[in-house]
Amino acid sequence: MTDLPDHPNISNGKKALVNRQESLDPDNWEDMRALGHRMVDDAISYLKDVEQRPVWKPMPEQLADQFKAALPQYPTSPDAVYEEFLGNIFPYPMGNIHPRFWSWYMGNGTILGAFADFLSATMNSNVGAGNHVANLVEAQVVNWMKELVDFPEEASGLLVGGASMANLVGLTVARNTQAGFDVRQVGLTSAGKQLTVYASTEIHSCNQKAVELLGMGTDSLRRIPVNDHYQMDMTALAAQVKEDRANGLQPICVIATSGTVNTGAIDPLNEIADFCTAQGLWFHVDGAIGAVAVLVDSLKTSLSGIARADSIALDLHKWMHVPFEAGCALVKNSAEHRNSFSVNPEYLTREVRGLAAGQNWFSEYGVELSRSFRALKVWMSLKEHGSDRYGRMMARNIDQANYLAGLINDDSDLQLMAPVGLNIVCFRYYPVVYQVMADQHQEKKESALETLNKEILFTLQEEGTAAPSYTTLEGKYCLRVAIANHRTQRTDLDLLISEVKRIGKKLTDQT
Amino acid sequence: MTDLPDHPNISNGKKALVNRQESLDPDNWEDMRALGHRMVDDAISYLKDVEQRPVWKPMPEQLADQFKAALPQYPTSPDAVYEEFLGNIFPYPMGNIHPRFWSWYMGNGTILGAFADFLSATMNSNVGAGNHVANLVEAQVVNWMKELVDFPEEASGLLVGGASMANLVGLTVARNTQAGFDVRQVGLTSAGKQLTVYASTEIHSCNQKAVELLGMGTDSLRRIPVNDHYQMDMTALAAQVKEDRANGLQPICVIATSGTVNTGAIDPLNEIADFCTAQGLWFHVDGAIGAVAVLVDSLKTSLSGIARADSIALDLHKWMHVPFEAGCALVKNSAEHRNSFSVNPEYLTREVRGLAAGQNWFSEYGVELSRSFRALKVWMSLKEHGSDRYGRMMARNIDQANYLAGLINDDSDLQLMAPVGLNIVCFRYYPVVYQVMADQHQEKKESALETLNKEILFTLQEEGTAAPSYTTLEGKYCLRVAIANHRTQRTDLDLLISEVKRIGKKLTDQT
Repeated sequence: MTDLPDHPNISNGKKALVNRQESLDPDNWEDMRALGHRMVDDAISYLKDVEQRPVWKPMPEQLADQFKAALPQYPTSPDAVYEEFLGNIFPYPMGNIHPRFWSWYMGNGTILGAFADFLSATMNSNVGAGNHVANLVEAQVVNWMKELVDFPEEASGLLVGGASMANLVGLTVARNTQAGFDVRQVGLTSAGKQLTVYASTEIHSCNQKAVELLGMGTDSLRRIPVNDHYQMDMTALAAQVKEDRANGLQPICVIATSGTVNTGAIDPLNEIADFCTAQGLWFHVDGAIGAVAVLVDSLKTSLSGIARADSIALDLHKWMHVPFEAGCALVKNSAEHRNSFSVNPEYLTREVRGLAAGQNWFSEYGVELSRSFRALKVWMSLKEHGSDRYGRMMARNIDQANYLAGLINDDSDLQLMAPVGLNIVCFRYYPVVYQVMADQHQEKKESALETLNKEILFTLQEEGTAAPSYTTLEGKYCLRVAIANHRTQRTDLDLLISEVKRIGKKLTDQT
Repeated sequence: MTDLPDHPNISNGKKALVNRQESLDPDNWEDMRALGHRMVDDAISYLKDVEQRPVWKPMPEQLADQFKAALPQYPTSPDAVYEEFLGNIFPYPMGNIHPRFWSWYMGNGTILGAFADFLSATMNSNVGAGNHVANLVEAQVVNWMKELVDFPEEASGLLVGGASMANLVGLTVARNTQAGFDVRQVGLTSAGKQLTVYASTEIHSCNQKAVELLGMGTDSLRRIPVNDHYQMDMTALAAQVKEDRANGLQPICVIATSGTVNTGAIDPLNEIADFCTAQGLWFHVDGAIGAVAVLVDSLKTSLSGIARADSIALDLHKWMHVPFEAGCALVKNSAEHRNSFSVNPEYLTREVRGLAAGQNWFSEYGVELSRSFRALKVWMSLKEHGSDRYGRMMARNIDQANYLAGLINDDSDLQLMAPVGLNIVCFRYYPVVYQVMADQHQEKKESALETLNKEILFTLQEEGTAAPSYTTLEGKYCLRVAIANHRTQRTDLDLLISEVKRIGKKLTDQT
């Protein structure tokens, strides 16, 4: 009995006949082992010495040409593929592994997290269905997340790619549970009333995407004003809900944010929980940034309302530093959760024995059927460090943010632009020459300050010194320093301030 | 200038004071390097010797207890975490890495794909936004996918977790583009007409999930009957669309399947394309299983209609054997694509220089903002093997499916249950004793055959011999062999048949 004739292995254009049946396995496992060892060595050096390198560097203009070739038709040896990676890819990361990266809101990752992704891909288990250990690991990790936010044992959850998806999962269950009719079956077109969702003006844009995706429309996302601390104004919330009801709309859900993206503000969670209970609304918490901050002792009180949520979105690839992607959706009522996502076609019938048995089919709780074993990197990371250390690392970042705010407040050329929320500091270079500018030049002044601060930011990034990001608060452009970074030290923040001032002075003197 | 006081590192309960600032980096990089080398060695052995192990094995009952401990509070050494992994996790994979795994529809993965996931997690770049090389790599991979399905250069796309998400992306653009009003802004409640979507009864359940998520409701997913080859019946499609229009509904989209999950059938793609053009409908192709089969010469004609689609969902973690997760969504009109997903909050403003510049912000084309560098494993895998080899591996699987069907047809105790579509074979053990059973016992017979074949399947899996899955076709339970496996040889299929017969005979003799 023979199979198809063996095919020649074509390596870099040269034919090399081999006697074994062709597959996608390596021609030579020992060569592959040696390559793997090299990769481990290179990765260790890469992370160990990251501080010695620029936080970010622009790609050479001609680099883009290296990524224009057509779909490869013939094989390239794994070593040659790796050389190309080393030359063209490895030197140009985003930069979020660096101690002075504070852009947007991202974690650093860890070496054991990266090893875990390798082991997970080696097993290549699909955690959508089936009776195998990866499902047990994910179940344990989800239980840990429930424990973290003080959710009951009977709550359900699953790991997802990130908070965009976790918020979508929570809002889907909210929509389907609160609509008062079978949305899955009949859809929204026949709904008598427009369903409405409430969140502060500081809400993350992924929630808008979710509301749009769910067919409710951006108009149905009511953006409630915030107070001076960028927290949802409860009076305005109550007024909007009342007005909407009076206008024949159907309020279904309030999204509270635990750690806004602009300033790290925490909405008044317990007040929102009370309001939702009184009004019969779903209470969803977008905790992408700040839900895991329950591990910080000093925050336990202001975050205690999270436990009262009907659904929560968490991120593990941010302040928990698990490599991308890792988020988590939790829903307090597991039946409502499953009822929003479970389908049972004949090829997915659950069996009582064999491969198709098992308790945890996570595809019944989310959008995706095939799912990677991302639980492994979370499981290994939480075991490696333990919750106390994560808490200390977060507390240190919060302390660093306050330290940075102190440096800014003590400096006559710098201006703090918002109260420090969690680990996020917004400020700008605002030298005396602008401070004394007369009021009638307000517009010109703001425009010049934006240009100046943008140039400071570009220079910091292009020189590889530090990578803050930026936002606009009340029309004013700010540098934004989000310190979700286990590698940051206070000396990194000292350097940031001295460089902002050096660059700012140089630019101001030039004009 | 000092930071917070150093914290003691607590390892396995013992305090060990260290002088450096605590972080999530290893205490000792050399120990971590040695651990990484061990992991590489173990992974190489694991995959090299996979054939020597059972395809799947049930977990010991007490294993579940190992995953019940609460959230760890204190650190465990990475070596100890790895030992736990080796003892409790590594031995119990799903099994899809094995040459005799043919359940559901999954790929095997490869060792270089797993290495790539490690490198990607080491860089930990976020491919949602920003000016860094990972975006260029993903753009190239998306271009390769466009090339594969003969999509024009100006089409857009992005990598996603799998076809569930890729179908959701395509159907979102279909809904938003075809509705005739601004669905993102106002939602579906104010729609005058119910939007309807068409697909065959064999459509994969993830499309139902997508339609439900999008707020259109399952009722709006019209399931069109299939012919004897499980392909969409075009006459029935035309009749349903006509009837729906007459009833005041608004048809927007036809979903064609290229490779159905039950039997691998390919819908009449060109006829559906013609119909969509004539009727002004969006043409979406769910090509999770069979779109990449364009690499097989003999299939180029029957798959040529894919190029005419408005949107396509592809999977790379199936027949392309990239480790989970890797799928791809393509949309022919990039403006329509971006218009469905782009949002521009102040903290995501695009800059012209620095880290926040760049052309390819993939978050503007999909649901998720934070996105892993999954493009790297696709990029390295396609370079390693080249498209020709993938084509040969797929052609071999198709040949093997036909070979298996031949073995079944030649055997008087076995019954082929559907025409072989692509690489999927549905059959059952159907010994003479049942064949001669009188017609009045039809129901009893079918029930007994289901019990018998289920027991055969359980035994095959529990003995670790092979892992087919199962489905029900026209009310009849079948074993289902989906050969998307680069490691399968014909001798594996010979073993499957001889074992099915041995187990079947033993069970029949007992009763």
